[in-house]
Formats: sequence, structure tokens, C-alpha cells
Amino acid sequence: MSYRDPDPKFRRELGQQLRVDSVRASAAAGSGHPTSSMSAADLMAVLLDGHLRLDFSKPDDPRNDHLIFSKGHASPLYYSLLKAAGAIDDAELLTFRKHGSRLEGHPTPVLPWTDVATGSLGQGLPIAVGVALAGKRLDRLPYRVWCLCGDSEMAEGSMWEAFEHASFNELDNLVAIIDVNRLGQTRETMVGWNLERHSARLRAFGWHTLEIDGHDVEEIEAAYGDAEQKTGCPTAIIARTKKGKGVKAVEDQPGKHGKPLDEPEEAIAELGGERDLSVQVAEPEGGEPHHFETGAAELPSWDLGEQVATRLAYGEALTALGTRRGDVIALDGEVSNSTHSELFREAHPDRYFEMFIAEQQMIAGAVGMQVRGWVPFASTFAAFLTRAYDFVRMAAISRANLRLSGSHAGVSIGEDGPSQMALEDIAAFRAIHGSTVLHPSDANQAAQLVAEMADREGISFIRTLRGKTTVRTPASEDVRIGGSRVAHEGDDVAIVACGVTVEEAVEAAEALASDGISARVIDCYSIKPIDAEALHAAARECGAIVTVEDHWPEGGLGDAVLEALADAPVPVRKLAVREMPGSATPDELLADAGIDAAGIAAAAQALVRERV
Amino acid sequence: MSYRDPDPKFRRELGQQLRVDSVRASAAAGSGHPTSSMSAADLMAVLLDGHLRLDFSKPDDPRNDHLIFSKGHASPLYYSLLKAAGAIDDAELLTFRKHGSRLEGHPTPVLPWTDVATGSLGQGLPIAVGVALAGKRLDRLPYRVWCLCGDSEMAEGSMWEAFEHASFNELDNLVAIIDVNRLGQTRETMVGWNLERHSARLRAFGWHTLEIDGHDVEEIEAAYGDAEQKTGCPTAIIARTKKGKGVKAVEDQPGKHGKPLDEPEEAIAELGGERDLSVQVAEPEGGEPHHFETGAAELPSWDLGEQVATRLAYGEALTALGTRRGDVIALDGEVSNSTHSELFREAHPDRYFEMFIAEQQMIAGAVGMQVRGWVPFASTFAAFLTRAYDFVRMAAISRANLRLSGSHAGVSIGEDGPSQMALEDIAAFRAIHGSTVLHPSDANQAAQLVAEMADREGISFIRTLRGKTTVRTPASEDVRIGGSRVAHEGDDVAIVACGVTVEEAVEAAEALASDGISARVIDCYSIKPIDAEALHAAARECGAIVTVEDHWPEGGLGDAVLEALADAPVPVRKLAVREMPGSATPDELLADAGIDAAGIAAAAQALVRERV
Repeated sequence: MSYRDPDPKFRRELGQQLRVDSVRASAAAGSGHPTSSMSAADLMAVLLDGHLRLDFSKPDDPRNDHLIFSKGHASPLYYSLLKAAGAIDDAELLTFRKHGSRLEGHPTPVLPWTDVATGSLGQGLPIAVGVALAGKRLDRLPYRVWCLCGDSEMAEGSMWEAFEHASFNELDNLVAIIDVNRLGQTRETMVGWNLERHSARLRAFGWHTLEIDGHDVEEIEAAYGDAEQKTGCPTAIIARTKKGKGVKAVEDQPGKHGKPLDEPEEAIAELGGERDLSVQVAEPEGGEPHHFETGAAELPSWDLGEQVATRLAYGEALTALGTRRGDVIALDGEVSNSTHSELFREAHPDRYFEMFIAEQQMIAGAVGMQVRGWVPFASTFAAFLTRAYDFVRMAAISRANLRLSGSHAGVSIGEDGPSQMALEDIAAFRAIHGSTVLHPSDANQAAQLVAEMADREGISFIRTLRGKTTVRTPASEDVRIGGSRVAHEGDDVAIVACGVTVEEAVEAAEALASDGISARVIDCYSIKPIDAEALHAAARECGAIVTVEDHWPEGGLGDAVLEALADAPVPVRKLAVREMPGSATPDELLADAGIDAAGIAAAAQALVRERV
Repeated sequence: MSYRDPDPKFRRELGQQLRVDSVRASAAAGSGHPTSSMSAADLMAVLLDGHLRLDFSKPDDPRNDHLIFSKGHASPLYYSLLKAAGAIDDAELLTFRKHGSRLEGHPTPVLPWTDVATGSLGQGLPIAVGVALAGKRLDRLPYRVWCLCGDSEMAEGSMWEAFEHASFNELDNLVAIIDVNRLGQTRETMVGWNLERHSARLRAFGWHTLEIDGHDVEEIEAAYGDAEQKTGCPTAIIARTKKGKGVKAVEDQPGKHGKPLDEPEEAIAELGGERDLSVQVAEPEGGEPHHFETGAAELPSWDLGEQVATRLAYGEALTALGTRRGDVIALDGEVSNSTHSELFREAHPDRYFEMFIAEQQMIAGAVGMQVRGWVPFASTFAAFLTRAYDFVRMAAISRANLRLSGSHAGVSIGEDGPSQMALEDIAAFRAIHGSTVLHPSDANQAAQLVAEMADREGISFIRTLRGKTTVRTPASEDVRIGGSRVAHEGDDVAIVACGVTVEEAVEAAEALASDGISARVIDCYSIKPIDAEALHAAARECGAIVTVEDHWPEGGLGDAVLEALADAPVPVRKLAVREMPGSATPDELLADAGIDAAGIAAAAQALVRERV
């Protein structure tokens, strides 16, 4: 045994210490959530002292348990726990929320023990599902994932995606600890202290459930012991607690959310004063993480002039990459025959994760798996990636390395209509911190960019097309993130296009040539980072630019071009989708939007004419 | 009785007609989802013939029942139903998915009987909850909301937000019909045909449930009758069905999703051939919709120089608006003491809807209520509105009139850290079709803009600040959507700011003045539409522009300014948040990002110097 036998008295004292330190940290900061910390202090004391198996001196040990605070606002408790484990000292605890401190208002991975950022409720548990999936199916290690959840966040749909996926995948290495303190920010939750209602819901979702008094260290000990023994399904510990427990002025009182205590010194005295207990946290167990076999595989390539959908190139390239690299994994939102991630599933079934129609869980699952160093590619229709936008936003704060593939971009999908058309995705993903946004126009570009994405830090997004486009990029040509290519030479006007509009732009350039206008077509397959050098050259040499994209006018290619040229501007005419499309053929819809060859040629002509 | 007694034979025939017409429409289109339509045909036949109370000749009759296809891809069935009800004719049915047709790939409100667009799964039911809430608490009419759900979409978390809110609000006017055909796009769902598992989950969520054979018209009849009698909670009819029911080649077969039948003529023959049954749909019942009393109220205003948070101005203005107008309602995601919608709740408790930590349900609820002409304002932290981005995207396709208020924008919130900071919201909402994006810098602006939003079509978003700013706009000054104001006169360089950066920009301009540089500060409180005229004047008269925003560099104010000047460009320097912030005071974080007065002054100085 690497840890002492349970000592209830020690644990009760430790719980009080965690409360005192939560009060102290929040008082020092002048803000924070001490009362939400105090409700879960006993739950965390018992976890730290005997159940969590984590070597705080080796945060990268693959055998470590994972502790995720889905209720990230209980950060004072989390940091107090780190102090009790000896990971940080008391002086650092008191830097909470101060400039330059690692102890931010809500936990982020600037701390080496913190897997992911939390603070947007309902995300920690779905991410924990991802880590637990990695433990079971990828690493194949016995580590356990402990997730502290608030009861307010049980109202978030993403929690129920997580509950369903956890039981469907028989994640008996996952324990959700639900801190039912009853009080949200302004009022009681919908369920209140009705533990049985929480429990019935979770049982119906396939979980083993335990209802306990979350302030009774012996009940907590028994519950953790039970969870550790349980096989075949995840366990939820539904703990009745009191917000602000231990300090009369705030205990179970409304209006005490998210603020430091008015009288911290009195509260600390009421809690029995400061303590300096430290916990010898249990060592992790298990061997080396599993590695998947690799082999030789060429990236797919196509001959010039072939008609291939970039979504198919995505699937084929990802499959080849999966053969080359054992760390590459794929997730899909039950549209794998549309995104073509089905090719990966067929070739590498052990590394494919079916996430069904649960896009939030898909992104959270990918975030969880990359915590353990896996290289996830997650795909669905680009329109439906917007469902998980908050998860992608938070993934950036988690410093996650994620690759997203969104298919069926724009009006060019045709008959399915606007609900299935991504027309805001470029804007949305450009505005993710540190992101990469790619939109290849042909299969050879797509294949090379998929390979580049595997080594890309941060969140990268590749936008693929439903329909086939002509292969214009030689397989031997260097395609790189940040690059572009000239698809048609010219110097009277430049047309900057991406994806399906490249084909239209080239056709427009050919038509313009017969009218004596020499148009340069730039295939801007990398929208962020953008090839500013090529754009500046085009601006200098052509004097005016038409941008054309199958996207709303805001935040997409056109805005990216304008930004790149902000310091040395030339007139830019932005072509984009400006009216709500309906259902029709791709050609009809491109024409309606004025982003087909005719629309582009007309815009270029008008621009050239104005400049004469 | 306005409708005939149940005739099972007629209903069975009607079911077959709906199948045949679904096959025909999809065959004519060459695409579509006939098999997903065929599974629910009997369910819809019985609904149309005797239970739905809807005057198709008066789609705006407030007493009408509402029928929402949450599984929007079953549009062939929906349109076949419209034909059987006499709302459209057979010729129009066969225009399905063709250019210019109202019968789009997925239903949209270009059809007068269609409340909202569906096609992004998991949205129809949460919207139905909104309509049902309107029926109970606002209109106070006996209309019923029938929502056809797919079983694949049961994996979407948003469904569980809806299930919880429906029972919490005792919506016995809501019936969810779950078409459990077992097969998703590529495989069986996680639950398959385990009706009892679906049922147990729904019961745990407080619903009355009925498990039936979805192809037995007598069982269906009994279930609808039961649902109509049930009081105190919503009813879910969990119907075991077969995808592609009635045609051997596709019935309960994998790989038959989302495509027309290979042999439509044979399938039609197998289904008994074409029919031309029409249904006399039951008349709606009930009286006039409820109206709330109104009274006189002045919009709040503040004196110049007062320090007021724009979020407080939002709450006060909304409350005054609610007094003036009985149609204004408010929803909040359990942060009403942060967004200040609590003021509205206190003044108008009957028109306030607490949506708890369920942002998707909040937006869907607002969409559902505006279906009935109510004027919803939905508020939470702007960062958490991203949770519902797909719902906002779809709301635009629904032609919904929605007003969103996002508080706690940008790094200026300070200590809470990046998870709570909206830094991508302007980009995200600019890229919503037909949207309006507002970011007032002071309380007087905020109050006037809130009033303007009430009459604004489409989706409007107001971004408010956590901290106080100085009132600079006289209460008497005209503040309008599409407007701007000059906060400091000058003509050497223009500084375009919004929200918290206006204060910093004015301070910078004052500092620059002492260095002999005359800077014009434009307070660009309306980002979309933007005041292009004022920007062109600034470009002409000042020659160079600095933009400054508390937002990531992509898709925000800077990009909006560049777009406005695309045809007559001048050098623009974009100041924005470029590194991931941590926790610190607002002033420290503004300085870190280089968007404080010092950063702005330095940028403006550099720009002026370069131009000399």
C-alpha cells in the first residue's frame, strides 16, 4: 500500500483545510468562488487521501490518474488541493487570480497537473469521457478519471451526451462526483436536493449510482471504494452537500455565489483556523502505454484533370496517415460515409471512435484524447461543427492540439438546403485563438494539408467539399500551411479564391482573357495563416483584387485578404453569399450568389474598368 | 366534433399515400430522405386525421396547433402531409428540392405552415418547448405542439435540455413523437429498438411515456388520445418503426439513408400505387391570445460623466421596454444578476423565463416564442452564447427575430480568466445572415440600442461590459443601429473603437494631442451595420486608421472597418487581443493586449510617423 489506511479524522481536518485555503485564496484575490469550493471539500479530501493515484512530481507519467474539475469555478478548492499534495506552496496559493499567476480564475493547463481548461460548465465531464476512452482503448492503462461536477451543470445537454457515451463505452474507469449543493448562481437548480431524481436519470443512462452525504468522509470513502470495484459501467457519486459548508454566514444561503466571504478571518476561525496538512498521494500503477503498429503508406495523389471530392481526399489521406503513424485517431459524428472518415474506420477500427449525433461530445472526446498525446482528427459536416463552437473555444484555452474536418461547405452542396451548408465556419474558426484554417480546392492539396495538420499545434480546421473538383495541383507540388498557388497567371486584376470558387475563378480568368483582361487567380487554400507575400505581390502587380468565397461575406476569405493588405491596401471587391440560399443544383446556387464564373468575371471586369 | 371518427382503414391508406408521395417527391428530386419519411408515415397519418388542430387556410391563426419536424430530413413526409391536408398540390410536391421551390431539402418558414427551419438535429424539440411555453404562459391558449423526433437525435444533448425544461414547466401541451426506426446514417443508434431504455430515460426526466408499434394505427390513435388527456406533464410517444417501411428493398436495411429509392416505380406498386386521399384537418379551438398590460415608462438615461456598466443599462432599458410593451419577454441562462435581466424578472415576472445553465434551450426557447410573435431578449455571458451558435445559425434560416445580449465581453472582465471572456463573439455573430451586432461604450448608448433592437428584424446581438464606463453620450443624442459618434475630434489619424476601448481611445487621443497629433476617435457602437459614411469621411480626412477592440483580431471591429473601406482603402492598423490572456485586473489585461490608452497612442503615433 502506497498510502495510509483511511483516517476519518485526518480527512475531516483535511476537508477543513481545503475550505480554509479556499477562503484565504479568494480573500487574497478579492474575487472567486469559495462557497462552491466549500461544498466539495470533503469529497476532494477523501479523494486526495487514498484514492487519487497521481505522481505530482511527474505530471507527464502516462499511468497517472486524471482529476478534472468540470465545475471549474471551484478553482480555489482545486488549488488548495494542489497545495495539500505539495504541488504548489502556500505563497503561490495566495497569488490566485493575480497578474502572471498560474492560478487563474478557472483552471487552465498553464499548470502541469491540469489537463484542460474548464469554466464553461458542462465541458469537463465530456472531456473526462475522452480521457477515459483513451485509457481503455488507446493507452490501455488502468488509470482512472475522476471528474468533479456541479449540479447546476447537469442542465447542460452536453452532460447527457457524456453520460450516454460513457455507459455505451462501458467506461468503468470513469467516476463522476456530483456535488449537489442545490444552489446555482441566482436560485435553486431544477432538481434541488432530490438526489433520487439525479440518480434515476443516471441509472436510466446506464450508470452505477451512489447517493451519499457529501460531508460524511466515511460515506465518501465507501463510495470511492465501491466505484473502484465496479466493472462494466461508469459510476456516479451523487453527493448531497451544502454550498459554503462550515461557515454559517454563507452555508446553504442564496446570494453567496461567486464572491469572497465578507468576513474571511471569522470564517477561518469558525472552520478551526489554518492548518498545514500534507497528503502523500498514492502512486500510479500499470505499465507502459499501448502503441499501435505502423507501416509504410504513401499519401494518396491524383492525376491532373481528375474529378475528385476533397472530402474523399481527406478520408484517403487520413487513412494513409493512420497507417504511417500509430498516434493518429479519428472521430466522427455519425456521418462517416459523408466525411469519408469511414475509410479510416475500415483500415484502423481500433482507432476510430463513433460519436453518433453528439458533436459536443465529439470535440470534447478529441480534447480528452489529445490530453494523452493522441492525435485526433474529428469530422462532421462543417455546418454541424458550429454545434460544438464553445467546446472549440475552450479547447484553445486548453492549449489542445485538435484537427477538425468539416465537409459539405457552402451553397455548393446544392439540394440539401441551408441547414446543411456551412456558410459561417471560416469566420467562426478564424476567430479561435491560434487556429489554422484550410480550404483546399482539389484532392492533391487536401491530402498534403491533412498530413501537415497532424504536426500542427493548436486547432486546425480543414473545410472540404461535397462535390468533385478538378485536380489542378500537381501531386509533386509543395502544398503547405501558409501557402497559396497561382492557378492562372495575369496582372490586370487578381482573383483570390478558395475551395469550389477556384474552379469558377479559373473559368472566369479564361473568359476575361478573351476580353483582353489578364487575371491572376490565387488559390488561397490556407486562409489562416494566409500567404501575405503572394497577396502583397498581387496587390502590387495587379492593383486590384476580387475575392470570392462560398461563405457569408463576414469573417471569411475576403476579410482575411483585407487584413493581410491592411498596411498596403488596394481596392478589393468581395464576392460572397449575400442572400439566404434555398435548394437547387450547385451550379444554380453558385450563380444565384454571384460566385460562379460569370459573377466573378463581371466583378473583375467592373473593377478593371473603374480603374481605367 | 369537427372531424370524423377514427377510421383505421383510411388511416392505413393515408399512411401508404404519405409513403408513396415521399418516394415520388424524392425520385423527382433525385435526392432526399424517403426511408426516414416512410418510418413515420403512419404516425403522421393518424396525427393529421383527427388530432392535429390546424387551419391550413389560416396559418397565422393564433389558435392553431403547431407541428414541428425535429427530424427535418423527413421533409418528403412533411410535404406529403401538406398535400394530404390540401395546403399544396401534387404539382408543387414534385418541385421538391428544385430551384425556386418552397419545398426545400429541409423545411424552412418560406412555407407559411412551417414555424421554423429544422435539419440540424436536436433543435426541433427545444424549439417546440419554446412554442409550448408561449402557449401556456404567454398566449394562454389551448393549442398543442406536436414534435416529430428521430431516434438518432436523441444523442444530442440539446434534446435532454428540452426534456428537462418541458417537464419542469409542466408542458402538458407538448407531445414528442419519437420515431424509433433504429437506423442512423451509417449504423444502428446506441439504443436501437430498446424502447424501454428510451422510455426509462424520459420517465426519469419527468415525462409521461407510451411505447407503441408505430405502424399500428390503432395503437397510435390510443396514444394520441392518451396524450391529449394527460395533464401536468408532457407526453412522449416512443414508437417502434422500420426505416423504409413498406418496401422490401429498403425496409430496415442499412445503407439506405438519404437517397432516393433505386426503383421508385416498383416501390410505389409495392405500396399499393398512388392515391389521392385528402384529409379534413380538425379546426383549432380556443379564444383570443392573452395580452399583457402596458404602461408608461421612460427609457433610463444617465448624466454625462457617470460611471455605469452597460450590462446594467441593458437590464434597466429592457425593464422599461417591458413596461411599455406587453410583447417583450426575457430569457436568461441563470446569470440574471450578472446580465441584469433580473431587473426585468422582478418587474415582469410573468414574462421572464429562467432557462438555467442550458444555453441551447435558451436560444431555442426564444425561437419558439417568437414563432408566436413575442419579442424575446435572451441573455447570458457573451462567451456562453457560443454554446448555442448552431441554434443561432439555424434561427437565421428560420427567419427568426431574436435579440441576444452577451455580457462580460473581452479581457476587460479581468480576474475570471479566459473561459469567461467573449473574444470571438463579434466574429461569430457578424457571420450570421442578416444579423445586427452592437457594442455600446456607455449606458446611454446601450439603453437606446436596446429599444431599437425590439423592432429589429433578424438576429440582433448587443455586447455589454462587466465593468463601468464613463457616460460620454448625452441622453438626448440620437443613437441608432448603423450609427456611430465622434468621441474626440481630430484629423491626423482616426481611431475606431467600440465598447471598453472607446474610453482608452479617448485617453490616447488626449495624450496624442499633447504630442501635437490630432486624433479623431470614432465610437463605432454599431458594428453591423457599420457607419460606412463616417468611416469613409475619416479615411478621407485623416488618411489612416487605427482600430482597437477587446476581441481576437479576426472577424471583429477591425475586419468590419476594413470591409467598409474595401473600395477606397487607407492604411489600417488593427489592435486586438493577440495572446491568450490569463487572470489579472482589467487594466493589466488591457495593457497586456496593447489595447489600452498607451498601446493605442503608440500605434497611432507610429502610423502617423510612417506617413510623414
